[in-house]
Amino acid sequence: MSELFEQWRGRLESAVRATEERGYWSPFSESASRRHHPDGARAAGQAAFEACLGQRFELSQPGECDRVGEEVSPFTQQPLGVSYPRCSPDALVQAARAALPAWRDAGVQARVGCCMEILGAWEAQVFANAFATMHTAGQTFRMAFAGSGANSLDRGLEAVAMAWKAMSTVPVSSVFRRSFGGPEVVLDKRYRLVPRGVAVVISCGSYPAWNAWPAVLANLATGNPVVVKPHPRTVLPVALAVRAAREVLVASGHSPDLISLAVDTLAEPGTVALAQHPAVRIVDFTGSPAFGAWLQSSCPQAQVFTETAGCNAVVLESALALPPVGIALAQGLSIFSAQMCTAAQNIFVPRDGIRVGEARVSLDEIVAHVVSRVDGMVAAHGPDLCGAVQDPHMAGRLAALGDEPRVTVARPSGTYAHPTWPQARTVTPAVLRVDADARDLYAREHFGPVAFFIACEDRDHALACATRDAREHGAIASYLYSVDVAWREQAVDAFLDAGASVGCNLLGQLPINYAAAYSDFHVTGLDPAGTACLTDLAFVARRFGVVQAKVERPRSENPS
Amino acid sequence: MSELFEQWRGRLESAVRATEERGYWSPFSESASRRHHPDGARAAGQAAFEACLGQRFELSQPGECDRVGEEVSPFTQQPLGVSYPRCSPDALVQAARAALPAWRDAGVQARVGCCMEILGAWEAQVFANAFATMHTAGQTFRMAFAGSGANSLDRGLEAVAMAWKAMSTVPVSSVFRRSFGGPEVVLDKRYRLVPRGVAVVISCGSYPAWNAWPAVLANLATGNPVVVKPHPRTVLPVALAVRAAREVLVASGHSPDLISLAVDTLAEPGTVALAQHPAVRIVDFTGSPAFGAWLQSSCPQAQVFTETAGCNAVVLESALALPPVGIALAQGLSIFSAQMCTAAQNIFVPRDGIRVGEARVSLDEIVAHVVSRVDGMVAAHGPDLCGAVQDPHMAGRLAALGDEPRVTVARPSGTYAHPTWPQARTVTPAVLRVDADARDLYAREHFGPVAFFIACEDRDHALACATRDAREHGAIASYLYSVDVAWREQAVDAFLDAGASVGCNLLGQLPINYAAAYSDFHVTGLDPAGTACLTDLAFVARRFGVVQAKVERPRSENPS
Repeated sequence: MSELFEQWRGRLESAVRATEERGYWSPFSESASRRHHPDGARAAGQAAFEACLGQRFELSQPGECDRVGEEVSPFTQQPLGVSYPRCSPDALVQAARAALPAWRDAGVQARVGCCMEILGAWEAQVFANAFATMHTAGQTFRMAFAGSGANSLDRGLEAVAMAWKAMSTVPVSSVFRRSFGGPEVVLDKRYRLVPRGVAVVISCGSYPAWNAWPAVLANLATGNPVVVKPHPRTVLPVALAVRAAREVLVASGHSPDLISLAVDTLAEPGTVALAQHPAVRIVDFTGSPAFGAWLQSSCPQAQVFTETAGCNAVVLESALALPPVGIALAQGLSIFSAQMCTAAQNIFVPRDGIRVGEARVSLDEIVAHVVSRVDGMVAAHGPDLCGAVQDPHMAGRLAALGDEPRVTVARPSGTYAHPTWPQARTVTPAVLRVDADARDLYAREHFGPVAFFIACEDRDHALACATRDAREHGAIASYLYSVDVAWREQAVDAFLDAGASVGCNLLGQLPINYAAAYSDFHVTGLDPAGTACLTDLAFVARRFGVVQAKVERPRSENPS
Repeated sequence: MSELFEQWRGRLESAVRATEERGYWSPFSESASRRHHPDGARAAGQAAFEACLGQRFELSQPGECDRVGEEVSPFTQQPLGVSYPRCSPDALVQAARAALPAWRDAGVQARVGCCMEILGAWEAQVFANAFATMHTAGQTFRMAFAGSGANSLDRGLEAVAMAWKAMSTVPVSSVFRRSFGGPEVVLDKRYRLVPRGVAVVISCGSYPAWNAWPAVLANLATGNPVVVKPHPRTVLPVALAVRAAREVLVASGHSPDLISLAVDTLAEPGTVALAQHPAVRIVDFTGSPAFGAWLQSSCPQAQVFTETAGCNAVVLESALALPPVGIALAQGLSIFSAQMCTAAQNIFVPRDGIRVGEARVSLDEIVAHVVSRVDGMVAAHGPDLCGAVQDPHMAGRLAALGDEPRVTVARPSGTYAHPTWPQARTVTPAVLRVDADARDLYAREHFGPVAFFIACEDRDHALACATRDAREHGAIASYLYSVDVAWREQAVDAFLDAGASVGCNLLGQLPINYAAAYSDFHVTGLDPAGTACLTDLAFVARRFGVVQAKVERPRSENPS
């Protein structure tokens, strides 16, 4: 049973080392080019995706009640026409529960080996999954392949590595020898790692893989069967992954019901019934802060891990040159129409501008520069950069923000024409200007491509505003541009004090909101943007306990 | 600052190794003899304890409102007359909070070194603390010295070792190099371990040190200041430890308010105000299941770690000889009048008796044998074995149990005369017989020395009853006596399946309810008897997060 483990041991051990050294490492390729993939892999993936369209998606899960499916491609605005089995939550949970004991007893190596094999199956499926992600979440193909592909596989592997590391510190057995006043007593002890129970992983509509793969694999590796509940608008990439995982499980002699798919609809959401099921012991959630908080307080029977959203800020203090900063900000604002949890929203700038090289550059100039960069990028690279948008109300919400009396619109949100998909629902960035006083407007996440340039008294005020929002509303990523080394160090400390991870002077790291598995801790779990970090020891260690047996050797077997 | 760390590094590394090998190890002595301690240590400890009596206990804590103290020695039934400062919970929490940043910034080695030094100070104080434990909790001197002394210090050191191990896996910094399409980008990353915030540790009246020391030290090592809230009847041993820790902190250049004592009274308990204080982020609790459950659901701002109580069972299936089993059970029932969380209460035995050697021994004979062993032990060793009892209502509660119509009293609870302390409040074991049907009587913890011999259909029924209670009501320790190896293996599996740790054929390990630091995981955290294990990775890893900064090197500094 540990054949798979031996097969993947090298990759696993490299991953463990990577999490300890935290430099750059990845066994997966971000490039969809022929150089990295066999000829025809892309075409085969596309064909596999297209073969799903208009069809029944077969999963052979227990408790199938009916079929649902309401995905619409943000690129074509046409229904995908895929129908999924809607299964009774109770049937899925009970089947998962029934599969637990054998999976637990298979042992750590068998489970970890199986998780590595699942990652291998997902890697083999990466083209099909990228097309599925594109036509559900609205990501560009490139992002769907790199971000929802390689980068998400990395996050999954990182979780397996951390789980392996945490579980490895507990020996299978020990021999305990001491005297209790008389002759030496020998106790043979054994330690059994016990999973908490059935886990529910709730993935989000815009980025289904990135948080879900680590949660799924952390759970499976530590012995907890998983029911995955995708967003009803983004089912297909998750369904492909679940089906592949079920096939790996069966092929290696385990129950397929260790992972299942719970599909619901927008009109009849099924999350509450799953998360509050009395047999569910773990909930991993990615989504809105409001629902994350509700889960946190409403599932006392479960450990709840959340990543929600915060107020991601940029503090602009100084730079060597404006163009690289403008490019970095404009790109971060445009990429996937800022529908990533690490996208910056609030750009705090001193009212009287910043020092750039030897010159002083006014706030007006900075805003104008970023707007022109956005214009240029959208015009030149819109289809490859912005992708499309699922939410039909996003454009209206951004327009309404621009209508607020205290807001000056520097760039209204618009659309771009997609050459391949003329029906694509596109939303280009809104660039707005407000005063730091207008906190009620900016101190919350507005999902989608909007930047507030926020005029502050001076750099310290800008920093104070950014860190205050991180503290009070959370932040998943913060950014700082400053070439004043002494001040920058203070500012970094202020961000760290606020519990907010910060990237400084990101110019060559593009997009700025890239977070690297094995190197970047994603979400601190210390502020309102989420209770769990991807992926630290606490992310995995809370998913299992240790139950032990000790057996005293008869004196006769212990001739000491 | 890491001078203390270097000084204690050898002991720390041995402790880490011990948690990985999980055999027997301890740097502390359980024996109060002259051979292990310098001449006069015991007398000096006793003098230090006596010097506290009738006096103001000085702590120089912030927010002192008035003085309280209502401890009564269970041995003399006289008040200790020690008065403690009662401080405003808010003042203690705010002072702790104010001390946090410098403590966090001192770094892992400085904090761990300081924790090791605190352990050293507690070790030096072990005689005084034993007398204080004896005359508050009612433990015998021997138990107060070994169990509340060495064994509790071991649990504290184990927590420091685990915290060190968990924190050590995160590097201080890393260098991340990769290309994002263009030339190589170099990011200097740094990782800051961030404590969650102020912690409250609530210790219990009967065994103040055992759960509190690990919680206190896990918190301090991971950077969280601690307010310790002892049971109002058992303040002195905790107060001595807090004062010693404050002195160590000051001597090593830190704020004393990193640890403080919150004393309350039975009439005006202060726990709720502390645990629900908005700045409190961690609560460690030892005590009743009802209050543990309340804390769990009522402190959403905090991580809550509980150890409460369960239904500890013995399954008697067979033995080589009756006397060793009788001795083991009688001693476990008598020691400290069964006021330990690992004491067995429910002894499940097949109705028609068990095989002992080549013979069949009836349930009547087994009960009679255990009763006679209890009688003999209490008569010969009562003062050294049973100690005394804090609770004036315990004897009445046990008598009332015996009056239940479905109960047959095999041995009524009584008292023994203490030669040194004629006023000692003593309670000797009640041995009761019930049928397995009378679940409402036995399937909950009755705090104090009471054993139910529970008549079952057969061994499988006995096992099913014991594991069912563990599953539904939790168990902190379970016991099994069987020389049928095949059946015993099944039974061990059944206990493990129920999430209950089990000790088999414990005869030479006396007392049977001894749990060894570094070797035994105490509490699984998987059943209703508590949410936290002492001491696994989850116990420490949940107490801190990681916040990171990454700074991109200017291209000019990066000539690649």
